[in-house]
Amino acid sequence: MKQSVHQLEISTRGQGLYEFTATANAWVEEQKMHTGLLTVFCRHTSASLLIQENADPAVRSDIQAYFGRLAPEDGPYDHDSEGQDDMPAHLKTALTQVQLSIPVVNGRIVLGTWQGIYLFEHRVRPHRREIQFHLIGD
Amino acid sequence: MKQSVHQLEISTRGQGLYEFTATANAWVEEQKMHTGLLTVFCRHTSASLLIQENADPAVRSDIQAYFGRLAPEDGPYDHDSEGQDDMPAHLKTALTQVQLSIPVVNGRIVLGTWQGIYLFEHRVRPHRREIQFHLIGD
Amino acid sequence: MKQSVHQLEISTRGQGLYEFTATANAWVEEQKMHTGLLTVFCRHTSASLLIQENADPAVRSDIQAYFGRLAPEDGPYDHDSEGQDDMPAHLKTALTQVQLSIPVVNGRIVLGTWQGIYLFEHRVRPHRREIQFHLIGD
Repeated sequence: MKQSVHQLEISTRGQGLYEFTATANAWVEEQKMHTGLLTVFCRHTSASLLIQENADPAVRSDIQAYFGRLAPEDGPYDHDSEGQDDMPAHLKTALTQVQLSIPVVNGRIVLGTWQGIYLFEHRVRPHRREIQFHLIGD
Repeated sequence: MKQSVHQLEISTRGQGLYEFTATANAWVEEQKMHTGLLTVFCRHTSASLLIQENADPAVRSDIQAYFGRLAPEDGPYDHDSEGQDDMPAHLKTALTQVQLSIPVVNGRIVLGTWQGIYLFEHRVRPHRREIQFHLIGD
Repeated sequence: MKQSVHQLEISTRGQGLYEFTATANAWVEEQKMHTGLLTVFCRHTSASLLIQENADPAVRSDIQAYFGRLAPEDGPYDHDSEGQDDMPAHLKTALTQVQLSIPVVNGRIVLGTWQGIYLFEHRVRPHRREIQFHLIGD
């Protein structure tokens, strides 16, 4: 049994879903483990992780618009010192998650056919986001 | 230290919560590990996982009705090619999660007294859902 | 490779976010592992876990108020035998999560600068909540 860790950085240019499925797949394959567990952890409170459909791009724009309506910028928030998009960003992060774990079977993460892994950026301005990978297995 | 994997298939007959706590418990006990970590992963983008109360059935019907109101079928969605229930299904999946990990202590997953593990089906038509189990421990 | 487990109990005095980052950090450091994976599991269906900003307290009160609006006490619920705050508590738990896993790198969990780990209590009356820690690594 062994472990591997890796930190990925993703530069975001505004709100939206940034896919990194190929990067995760490639890194896992390089570790040469047959069976294991990949954990992906987002080190932020205003960006989160999502596994969602990687086919029709309208699914992603619908998701982004939906969360914009669910946690609007003009809500009755006390925390407003970091910009109008900051408190909604914390709420969208709370409604999704900052951690995902995916089993590895036969050397590959077991994503379904239509599943992609996305960083969900909730801030308007560009950010550099740190994503920690952890893999345990053999 | 060792690992076990298993793929469970659940046939759904419409929206709702399908419990598989007993199946998870039985599979973990068969693996004969004293301490470990069970990960359950749902390989879909329109069905998700939930740990919820397994006592009063009204809790489950209230949860289903609530998510129906929170992500309604008549929302302003661009993605509508796969049926009126498809985009709300993606949103309900995003609001819950497709992965759960539960520690194993003394040979059993440490669910609380009132916790059951459910597949949360968000599509109206019957589906066959694939759930991947991964267990690591000793 | 080795494992450690520990059960933490948190006494809550009403709805709100109860931080236990320092407890998690201290316990992980005591286990003397260089690399690993910490899993935190909440054994309840009316309290959940959240990683959120640990700087401005207004973020926490805004989060609490937001979830109060999103899952209000006066909703059309069938399950009302355990108090008006019980069904909203189940919904808030479903919208967040009862499990978090955080990689351990160089002997410490890789929380970002602004991330704290919180128990999110959704019930009004005092409760004693059980949180299971599981650590695997070497």
